[in-house]
Amino acid sequence: MSRTKKEVTIYDIAAQLDVSVATVSRALRDDPVVSVKTKKKVFDLAEKYGYQTNQFARNLRKQQTNTIGVIIPRLNSYFMAAVIAGIEQVANQAGYNLIISQSSESAERESINVRTMFNNRVDGLLVSLSYHTNNLDPFEKFAKKNIPVIFFDRTPESSTFTNIRINNVQAGYEATKHLLSKGRRRIVHVTVSSTESVYRERFRGYAQALAEYGVPLDMNLVYLGDLSLEAGADAAKFIHSLPQKADGVFVANDNCAAGCVIGLKAHGLRVPEDIAVVGFNDDPVSRIVEPNLTTVHYPGHEMGELAARSLINHLNGAADIMLTQTILLRSDLVVRESTG
Amino acid sequence: MSRTKKEVTIYDIAAQLDVSVATVSRALRDDPVVSVKTKKKVFDLAEKYGYQTNQFARNLRKQQTNTIGVIIPRLNSYFMAAVIAGIEQVANQAGYNLIISQSSESAERESINVRTMFNNRVDGLLVSLSYHTNNLDPFEKFAKKNIPVIFFDRTPESSTFTNIRINNVQAGYEATKHLLSKGRRRIVHVTVSSTESVYRERFRGYAQALAEYGVPLDMNLVYLGDLSLEAGADAAKFIHSLPQKADGVFVANDNCAAGCVIGLKAHGLRVPEDIAVVGFNDDPVSRIVEPNLTTVHYPGHEMGELAARSLINHLNGAADIMLTQTILLRSDLVVRESTG
Repeated sequence: MSRTKKEVTIYDIAAQLDVSVATVSRALRDDPVVSVKTKKKVFDLAEKYGYQTNQFARNLRKQQTNTIGVIIPRLNSYFMAAVIAGIEQVANQAGYNLIISQSSESAERESINVRTMFNNRVDGLLVSLSYHTNNLDPFEKFAKKNIPVIFFDRTPESSTFTNIRINNVQAGYEATKHLLSKGRRRIVHVTVSSTESVYRERFRGYAQALAEYGVPLDMNLVYLGDLSLEAGADAAKFIHSLPQKADGVFVANDNCAAGCVIGLKAHGLRVPEDIAVVGFNDDPVSRIVEPNLTTVHYPGHEMGELAARSLINHLNGAADIMLTQTILLRSDLVVRESTG
Repeated sequence: MSRTKKEVTIYDIAAQLDVSVATVSRALRDDPVVSVKTKKKVFDLAEKYGYQTNQFARNLRKQQTNTIGVIIPRLNSYFMAAVIAGIEQVANQAGYNLIISQSSESAERESINVRTMFNNRVDGLLVSLSYHTNNLDPFEKFAKKNIPVIFFDRTPESSTFTNIRINNVQAGYEATKHLLSKGRRRIVHVTVSSTESVYRERFRGYAQALAEYGVPLDMNLVYLGDLSLEAGADAAKFIHSLPQKADGVFVANDNCAAGCVIGLKAHGLRVPEDIAVVGFNDDPVSRIVEPNLTTVHYPGHEMGELAARSLINHLNGAADIMLTQTILLRSDLVVRESTG
């Protein structure tokens, strides 16, 4: 089947209706100069031939596509699905469409996604960075054209762009302090090796809480993986093999924490009697695994709504997001059975 | 902050470099006629001014954007994340970018997404339908222009487009037959009220298996919800309230089945002793909930790979997907503790 079928142009439409090209062009723009009758003829024929709106030319005129680009690391977490649902809700209400792409945690792929979004002329961009992003150059072309970019969740440590996130240092501090307050002193931290500030900040919170309780930071108790369910099983194996027993674990996401709890139980350890576990995100899995996880409630849906609303207010001229450097959202510790 | 900053054109670049517009245009197309030195000057200036590739004009010339559009109901399931990871893997290797949008189970939103994808001139479209899609008119404009559309998982019951799915009748039959083979006779089916064939076919498989064992189909045992975790809890309440006790449940997805297992246990029912549960999809949650779920393994990643590969082979002229009406993938029952 041929793919080179000739593109229908406004010239063809004009010729077939025996009107001028200018009339067809005006009709497609819904210009009041053209009669309703003629417009209908033009629209019908355009529809019949599957005439593709000259989006590019229209963009040049309106400078607007009513499309928001969203770039995220992966679509495979409940948290990210909640953020996107929040973005979508606000965007749809305001008449914007979303196009989404994922970096799969690759900085290179992220940079390709940024270019695709740029060439598709999105009106604005919402981004959560990959584990391995170490420079923001790909985003500079947006800045140069005054196309707004807002980072959420995984945000750059310092930049001229607007960031929306939670206070990860504080959240990590509270998670760890909760374990300390339960009398736990040998606390493992399961996280990911990343250039990205989110995880480094949770670690900093962990270290701060330990310091407050006079417990020396022991880097042998920090386990690095990719925070998947499988990494949780590996972390449990690591914990089981420790020469001196651990009595607490703070895991930087719930999925990995669930894998860890299952693994610990398989190794014959009782949760929370032998070892208490705290997760992060308050994903549904935290209420499915047994015992249910103590975790940090991360308001993903609200973060998505806020990011979209900030972007759209900026586009509408209702507020200038460029004036805002950082918006911090509140997170809360949710205590369940995994810490007793 | 002004958003109406003037668009830099190739005319500006030509003027500033004192070369012809044709030279700039050729340089941007990487035409070998232009010297490497001039090309570099053009690229540098284009980069400096944040010149946006005239994607539309380029598309007209090449008729190709190297972008594949993906429209799915929701991004919130492990299954869908696995499909997208499969699509992404094949697409990236072949030099294609993905743009993704979600219908949020709304036929209207789906139709807007289709238009956005059309106007962004994707080279092809991969679609999983919403619960409520009842006509394929929005996709006709793709057919008219010979832009390939492939439906996967939630596919239309009959159409001229290509479908990739599993045999849902058979999968539903095997899930139910497994419960019957364990001596269960009062088997509840938890599903969604949808125009979409996937769920109707699983129901048909359920009815077929019952008929084979001489168990009359009792519509009072069919529970309809939205297949969420919460719907699973509601289904458990329904099951608990049945005047004549049920001894088996077949739930049309794992997330809902997990919610159902948790709910049944909360009502004091033992799984599988009092009631055996079968889910669908083989999501990780099936291995987290206790007891682990017997479920139908649905090869999501493979389905994504196959869909992308079929589309790209068609685009490259290596194979004509239009000749293929339906590709059925194999699914398998995975037996775990929830059925004893």
